[in-house]
Amino acid sequence: MTNPQPASAGPQPPTGREPRTRTHTWTPAPPISEYAHLSGEEILLEWIAGRIPEPSICSTMGFHLTEAKPGTAVFEGELGDHLFNPMNTVHGGYLATLLDSALGCAVLSKLPAGIGYTTTQLNIHLLRPLFGDSELLRCEGVVLHLGRTMATAEAKVVGTESGKLYAHATTTCAILTPRPAA
Amino acid sequence: MTNPQPASAGPQPPTGREPRTRTHTWTPAPPISEYAHLSGEEILLEWIAGRIPEPSICSTMGFHLTEAKPGTAVFEGELGDHLFNPMNTVHGGYLATLLDSALGCAVLSKLPAGIGYTTTQLNIHLLRPLFGDSELLRCEGVVLHLGRTMATAEAKVVGTESGKLYAHATTTCAILTPRPAA
Amino acid sequence: MTNPQPASAGPQPPTGREPRTRTHTWTPAPPISEYAHLSGEEILLEWIAGRIPEPSICSTMGFHLTEAKPGTAVFEGELGDHLFNPMNTVHGGYLATLLDSALGCAVLSKLPAGIGYTTTQLNIHLLRPLFGDSELLRCEGVVLHLGRTMATAEAKVVGTESGKLYAHATTTCAILTPRPAA
Amino acid sequence: MTNPQPASAGPQPPTGREPRTRTHTWTPAPPISEYAHLSGEEILLEWIAGRIPEPSICSTMGFHLTEAKPGTAVFEGELGDHLFNPMNTVHGGYLATLLDSALGCAVLSKLPAGIGYTTTQLNIHLLRPLFGDSELLRCEGVVLHLGRTMATAEAKVVGTESGKLYAHATTTCAILTPRPAA
Repeated sequence: MTNPQPASAGPQPPTGREPRTRTHTWTPAPPISEYAHLSGEEILLEWIAGRIPEPSICSTMGFHLTEAKPGTAVFEGELGDHLFNPMNTVHGGYLATLLDSALGCAVLSKLPAGIGYTTTQLNIHLLRPLFGDSELLRCEGVVLHLGRTMATAEAKVVGTESGKLYAHATTTCAILTPRPAA
Repeated sequence: MTNPQPASAGPQPPTGREPRTRTHTWTPAPPISEYAHLSGEEILLEWIAGRIPEPSICSTMGFHLTEAKPGTAVFEGELGDHLFNPMNTVHGGYLATLLDSALGCAVLSKLPAGIGYTTTQLNIHLLRPLFGDSELLRCEGVVLHLGRTMATAEAKVVGTESGKLYAHATTTCAILTPRPAA
Repeated sequence: MTNPQPASAGPQPPTGREPRTRTHTWTPAPPISEYAHLSGEEILLEWIAGRIPEPSICSTMGFHLTEAKPGTAVFEGELGDHLFNPMNTVHGGYLATLLDSALGCAVLSKLPAGIGYTTTQLNIHLLRPLFGDSELLRCEGVVLHLGRTMATAEAKVVGTESGKLYAHATTTCAILTPRPAA
Repeated sequence: MTNPQPASAGPQPPTGREPRTRTHTWTPAPPISEYAHLSGEEILLEWIAGRIPEPSICSTMGFHLTEAKPGTAVFEGELGDHLFNPMNTVHGGYLATLLDSALGCAVLSKLPAGIGYTTTQLNIHLLRPLFGDSELLRCEGVVLHLGRTMATAEAKVVGTESGKLYAHATTTCAILTPRPAA
C-alpha cells in the first residue's frame, strides 16, 4: 500500500488517506427528570425551541429533533463520512440510533408530567445502503400502544428528496411510574 | 459560544453547563471490497494489527475491534458524556451500534475471500442503564447459522469489571455472492 | 388431585375438568410450487375462492384468509379453549402464527408467477391478553419493502368488535429466485 | 365430510386429496394463578409429573414440556401434516409457538410463588425448512436477565437426531408483581 518516493520528492499530493479530524460541540443538559413539572410533549417542544439543550448524542452522530405532537416525534439526520462501517457505507448503528430516538420521543410525547420511560427492546429492519453524501433523512416515530406499564411504537427512515424508505423499526418501552414512598 | 461578561464581572464559577467540545480523528479507509483477495478473518486481523484503518464510526462513538477468530468478533467500548440520551444515560443507539458491529464482524469472520454481507435485521434487548463513567464494555458476537444466502448471529455486552450483562442482540445478515457476469 | 368416591356413588356431576376432545378437518393441498403459472395474488384469490385448499395450519389453529390484493393480505381468527397457555389465556404462539401468515401472504401477493419466498425473521409485540371467548380477530399484513432478494412487511391484530389493537409484528422474508440451470 | 357415491360406483382410488381428520384431547387446567403457593419451578415439575394438566395448546399443536430447572425449560415437538403452510412445509408459527413456550417457561422457572409473567415481545429467526415427517425437535429456553419488572431469555430449536439448528429466538417478558391492596 506504500508508494516509495524518490529522496528528492517535494510535498506530496493528498492521497485521500490523510487522517481526518472532526470537532463537535454540545451543551450539557440536565436530565429530563429535572423537568418533572412538564409533560413529555412540553419537554420536547422546549427542546425544539432551544430552551432545553438537546442530548449530546445528537451532536456526536448528527441528527436533530424537529417536530413533536402527542404520539409523534420527528428527527432529521445529516450523513457524513464520520459514520462509516467497513464497507464505507453508513453504519446501521446510525440508523438504529436515529430510529431509537424517534421511537422513544414518540412515547415520551404521550406521557404526563413526572412519568418516565426506558427502552427495553428495539427491532430494526435495514433496507438499502446509505452513503456519506446521501440525502437528508427524516425519521418519524409513532406510538402504537400505550398501557399502564408498557408502550410500543414504530418508526420509519425516509429520504427527504427521494421519498425512499431506508429503514424501519419497532420498540417496546417500559413506563416508569414513580414508586410510592415507603 | 462565548458569553460576554460586564467589565466589572470577575471570573464566573463554572455551572457545569458550559458548551463542551470534542475532537476525534480517523484515517479514511478503502472499502473492504478492495481487500477481495483476503478472507473475512484476514481482513479483521489486519484491522486489529492496524494495517487496515478502522471504520470512522469507531472514532465517532468510541469502540474498537480487539479480537477475531472464525465465527467470533469482540469489540471494546469506552463510554463518555458525548453519548447521552435525554435521561443523561448512555443512548441505546450506542449499544445498538456496538452490538451491530460485533454481529456483522462475527459473520464476516466466516466468509471466504470475495464474499460480502449486509445486515438486514437487528434485534436489541437493553437491560440496565449505563452512565458516562461506567466501566469499559466488552461486546462479543458469535455466528449461530451460516447458510448460502443468509446468516444469523448473537452478541452480548458485558461490563469488563462487574461481569454484568447490559444488553444482548441477534441479527439476520444477507450473504452477498458476486453476481455471475452476463 | 383425586377425589376418592364411596363404592355406592352414582354418576358424578361434571367438574369442568373432564378431558376435552376436538376434531378438525382439512383437505391436503399441493404445495404452491405446483401453481408456478399463477402470480402470488392469483394464488391467494384461488385460495379465498376455495379452488385451492387452505393450508392445514388454518384448520389446526382456527384462522382463515379472507382478503388479498397486491401488497395486502387479511386473515380472520376465531379463538377457542384449544389455544390456552398456562395462564388459560390465548397462547402468544397463536397470534404469532396469525401474524406470520398475514405477513407472508402480503409478500406473496406482490410476487410474479414462479417466484417464492421464505420467512427468515419475525418480530412480535403482544399487547393485551385474549381469552377463549374473546371477539373475532382481524389480522392485516402490508408490505413495506420489496427488493430483489428481500422483502419486509408489517401486520396488526385488531378486534373486529372493539377495534382494540392486540398485537403487531414485522418480518423479513427472503425472495427465492429460481436458480439458473447448471 | 362424506362424499355420497352413486350406487353403481365402485370404490374410488385414493387421490391423496381426500379430506383429513385429526382428533386431539386435553384436560382443562386451572390457570396457574391457582397454584400461587408453588414456585414457578414447582409448577413446571408438577406439570411434567402429570399432576397439573398441560395447557391445551400442547395437544393442539403437538409439543410437550420435558425438563425444567431454575432458568431453563425444555420442550419436545413432534411434527405432522396438520402444521403445513402454503409450501407444505411446517408453518413458522409452529416454531414460534414452541419457542415462545420454552422462553416463557424458562422465565417462570425462576419466579417465586405468587409472581406471574407475560410475554411482551418475541423475536424469531427461522433458518431451515421442516417437513411433516422431519425428526423430533428439542427446544431449550434459557433466561438471560431477570430484573424486578422485566426478564429476557433465549431459545433454540435443534433436531434430536441431526443436531441441526432450525430456529432461535429471544423474548422480553414483563414480571407481574401483585398490586398492593388499596
